[in-house]
Amino acid sequence: MPFAVEDLTCDSFLGGRLSVLQPRGGYRAGVDPVLLAAASPVRAGQSVLELGCGAGVAALCLGARVAGLRLTGLELQPRYAALARENAARNRIALSVVEGDLAAPPQEVRQQSFDHVIANPPYFLRARGSAAADSGRERALGEETPLAQWVDAGLRRLVPKGRLTMIQRAERVPELLAALQDRAGDVELLPLAPRAGRPARLVLLRAIKGGGGPFRLLPPMTMHQGAAHDGDRESYTPAIGGVLRNAAAIEWPIA
Amino acid sequence: MPFAVEDLTCDSFLGGRLSVLQPRGGYRAGVDPVLLAAASPVRAGQSVLELGCGAGVAALCLGARVAGLRLTGLELQPRYAALARENAARNRIALSVVEGDLAAPPQEVRQQSFDHVIANPPYFLRARGSAAADSGRERALGEETPLAQWVDAGLRRLVPKGRLTMIQRAERVPELLAALQDRAGDVELLPLAPRAGRPARLVLLRAIKGGGGPFRLLPPMTMHQGAAHDGDRESYTPAIGGVLRNAAAIEWPIA
Repeated sequence: MPFAVEDLTCDSFLGGRLSVLQPRGGYRAGVDPVLLAAASPVRAGQSVLELGCGAGVAALCLGARVAGLRLTGLELQPRYAALARENAARNRIALSVVEGDLAAPPQEVRQQSFDHVIANPPYFLRARGSAAADSGRERALGEETPLAQWVDAGLRRLVPKGRLTMIQRAERVPELLAALQDRAGDVELLPLAPRAGRPARLVLLRAIKGGGGPFRLLPPMTMHQGAAHDGDRESYTPAIGGVLRNAAAIEWPIA
Repeated sequence: MPFAVEDLTCDSFLGGRLSVLQPRGGYRAGVDPVLLAAASPVRAGQSVLELGCGAGVAALCLGARVAGLRLTGLELQPRYAALARENAARNRIALSVVEGDLAAPPQEVRQQSFDHVIANPPYFLRARGSAAADSGRERALGEETPLAQWVDAGLRRLVPKGRLTMIQRAERVPELLAALQDRAGDVELLPLAPRAGRPARLVLLRAIKGGGGPFRLLPPMTMHQGAAHDGDRESYTPAIGGVLRNAAAIEWPIA
């Protein structure tokens, strides 16, 4: 059953460049899919697959930043797939949304290869037996599909030397790296620290399918200025503010 | 055959607290074993095993910082083991050096468990067929034993909840984490960046045998001040200078 209009909010992203419908009570995109899109080194005219695209925020952010992309989103839940289609139409961005499970993608996706794959997999292991009030939220925040399967599905769909870009909790870096071992190279890890000098809460990760370069641990990007949360005051660092408000790309440091 | 006196240099560490004989042409300890010792959270009276102790610098740095340790070094090469014994005697630090292979330790080591294991494994894969001029240097810089075997040997010799501390090139973080998976917890990675804002060249890693805590990616420690190498001028940051000159411990950030 599709979302009822009264259950949807309309939220603006990238300083108003995007206007996105999201379920009030379900999985809601925040900063993370915007960072994911900013970290993917996509060039005009390339093809991109987003695994688990939800309402489509990350894919639409890419479309807003880079012209002429061939964008595809794979989404398990029909309601979210329908919402992603609606959001693409509202923002006049060509995004082809396919319903299906990334662990066994439909033929329409399986028969294609992509220059880029992006993914923002669920962050937390789903507590078994505790049924969330909204099953969509449960699906998107809790785990259905092991992280290794996300990596595997992404690598399978890439052209040789294609690039995988993911965002994930820092705690799960060992799982991510293990899934990439012997299958991708040039793995780069960009820690995202909530404040300067704090442990990373999230990481951005890039890898090249069949790449031969060494692993690189990059200097962290700091999300917020100051030492602590400062009430309602905007506290993003200039680099993060540029990504969130001006659709800037994240420049990966070159050693 | 032991080193000839004329082939040895006498080098000072920890601001003169240690004086260490090292082979002129073989593996020579620099900053890295000092950082390793500084990163190991050893308390007075505990037992410590160093895998591959070479001339003994890391173990002796620990002995210089913390009183009443039971220190053991395992070293494959008899010449280096003899040198480590000589260095322990010269510095009046009780270090028991055992000759043997960490892949199959002698019974004297196998029958003991330790509160801490420390290791600074070789950084580079040995180029096959290129015989180095000095086989000791080749052994210490090039790989004989896979990194996973170092981790395995360390975990085996730890008491339950004992702590493993290692230093290694950042490029090899995926191998290290893979070797620790499902066997240790509370893994903490402390990147060491040569300059502020640069990718990490080395990492310090700590883990607890049988620990249950999540992986943590800590903010980097910066080795040198300034943007580039500044001739012969001392350029260490205050934190690193304190470790190298004043035998300070590395304070691991607490989130």
